[in-house]
Amino acid sequence: MSELRQDPTTREWVIMAPERSKRPQQTLRKRQIEVLPDWDKSCPFCPGNEKQTPEAVLVIPDSDGDSGWSVRVVPNLFAALTMEGSDGPLEEGGLNRGMLGLGVHEVIIDNPAHNTTLALMSYRQVEDLLSAYQQRYNVLKKDPRLKFITIFKNHGRESGTSLTHPHSQLVATPIMTPYYHRRFDVAVNYYADTGRCLYCDILTEELEKKVRVLVETGEFIVFHPYASRSSYETWIIPKKHSSSFGLFSEEHRPELAMLLKDILLCLYSGLDNPAYNLMVDTTITEDEDDPYYHWHIRIVPRLSMIAGFEMGSGIYINTRLPEDAVQHMKEIARSLPPDECACLKE
Amino acid sequence: MSELRQDPTTREWVIMAPERSKRPQQTLRKRQIEVLPDWDKSCPFCPGNEKQTPEAVLVIPDSDGDSGWSVRVVPNLFAALTMEGSDGPLEEGGLNRGMLGLGVHEVIIDNPAHNTTLALMSYRQVEDLLSAYQQRYNVLKKDPRLKFITIFKNHGRESGTSLTHPHSQLVATPIMTPYYHRRFDVAVNYYADTGRCLYCDILTEELEKKVRVLVETGEFIVFHPYASRSSYETWIIPKKHSSSFGLFSEEHRPELAMLLKDILLCLYSGLDNPAYNLMVDTTITEDEDDPYYHWHIRIVPRLSMIAGFEMGSGIYINTRLPEDAVQHMKEIARSLPPDECACLKE
Repeated sequence: MSELRQDPTTREWVIMAPERSKRPQQTLRKRQIEVLPDWDKSCPFCPGNEKQTPEAVLVIPDSDGDSGWSVRVVPNLFAALTMEGSDGPLEEGGLNRGMLGLGVHEVIIDNPAHNTTLALMSYRQVEDLLSAYQQRYNVLKKDPRLKFITIFKNHGRESGTSLTHPHSQLVATPIMTPYYHRRFDVAVNYYADTGRCLYCDILTEELEKKVRVLVETGEFIVFHPYASRSSYETWIIPKKHSSSFGLFSEEHRPELAMLLKDILLCLYSGLDNPAYNLMVDTTITEDEDDPYYHWHIRIVPRLSMIAGFEMGSGIYINTRLPEDAVQHMKEIARSLPPDECACLKE
Repeated sequence: MSELRQDPTTREWVIMAPERSKRPQQTLRKRQIEVLPDWDKSCPFCPGNEKQTPEAVLVIPDSDGDSGWSVRVVPNLFAALTMEGSDGPLEEGGLNRGMLGLGVHEVIIDNPAHNTTLALMSYRQVEDLLSAYQQRYNVLKKDPRLKFITIFKNHGRESGTSLTHPHSQLVATPIMTPYYHRRFDVAVNYYADTGRCLYCDILTEELEKKVRVLVETGEFIVFHPYASRSSYETWIIPKKHSSSFGLFSEEHRPELAMLLKDILLCLYSGLDNPAYNLMVDTTITEDEDDPYYHWHIRIVPRLSMIAGFEMGSGIYINTRLPEDAVQHMKEIARSLPPDECACLKE
């Protein structure tokens, strides 16, 4: 028997239909990374090819002290938005509202190695990447024309990535994004009713119920949301109320890097390197201290396709209950050598 | 220079970035249909294998008068929802709201031939299919537990389909779908402000501006929306206000079938058989005569992936302006033999 579950943060619905996991066509992804070279002379993101990209806006040096870099951030050569635009209206008139494509679109090259991925990088390398995310966020938020900054990563073909070399992206827009807008409306109403942050209350409940919590550390809770749209959707969320990723304290970055790497290694090992999207969900740049929102990192494995039903209805079908997926994640972590996924072992 | 465009029906934004079409990885789909057999003994949807599916809830006989069928509708063997559920709440408690998975999930087998597709079917066969859509809609809408009926079709691998044999699906849910909910909110507000249907006004504007209209017939307008999320997104929408697909008059079905087939043949021929999703967007079953909504068929080619930016922001990136895509569709239609896509030729 399937279930319909409503996401308390968006009021949208998900169908939980474990029976559908028995459909014949479902296959997990094969490992592709192991057959790649560690350097590709034709790859614009590989060391030595830096001239093939626009000039870097941020370089994090390699901590090993040699002359190399750990993370490079460059303007996207095929930018969806650029700062040459204006935020005034376009003259289409009538019912249609538009504006020139003002904004910023950057590529964050996660690591010099062509054939690595966050799951296989060192904690220190993941920390450098998170530092790059945050540094760029904090530079761009100062521009009053940019209202919202979306940081994300596409891993694997089914995630929509177009280049193999591990990279993330940042898009800053002159508008509040629709996804944030929906969640913000729900969170503000909840705050008006209760005087509390919706996300803080969800965390309290999840810690009481325990069934969807993967791990709790000093600063973070990792859990699978009640109405996950995708099997194994995982959130890393700070325990203390904090609406903006930009204000996240540097001292807790190693803890976040450890969790992020271990979760992704768990997925990599147990689900055979699935494609996934990673998103940093944060508040608008203009009100980083708001009491409504609560920043988090959302990891969404792409184990099924977004098809006509999802597009026509806005309802997603998930074939594995989050309670079961969390148990599976714990089993995977336990099955790994002692030094792998240590923070996810009970 | 890219543009940001707001969808007047959802208030959500799309980035129009034609520059991004130059990215190196973009490739169109290859024709796969031509190499398939017309009958596959292992396919549960092929004639002769009817026992491999649950018993049909509707069979439209072949108009050629032999003993075969033209369209078969069967319960989905891996149903996401079933009528064994109830619409009462599930006892998860706290902030989480859920209910048992009450509903209906059916498969509509478009045609007996294993290797055909709507683009290649006869007008009469497409008409039979539309008849099956509508007949099942009108049976299921009578159940007061079912608030909304989503009819859709996934064509090609990138659309999320799991079986090759051409088929559509119907999902009836005990809840208003989130996609409809968003649009309904916008349309009701517009009606409250103006006393008019938003969609009727959009049609008036599109007919005046002409730049996004592919064709106008006696009953329908075919156009590409101002803020199309996907290149070549195409709407077929009745000119007269009508909120429910269930009330669509049978006498105009041949006209709709002709438009649908010709549009899909145009995509098939000009874009090398792209994957697409087709959705029938209609109102809730309880208020089929409402003055706010306006049913239509939405065809969304899947020429790009839904990636982390779309998932993280809710903003879609479209690399071809609808004005340009419409021109291209017209060119494709003109380039075809006189008896193909006749209704799209000017």
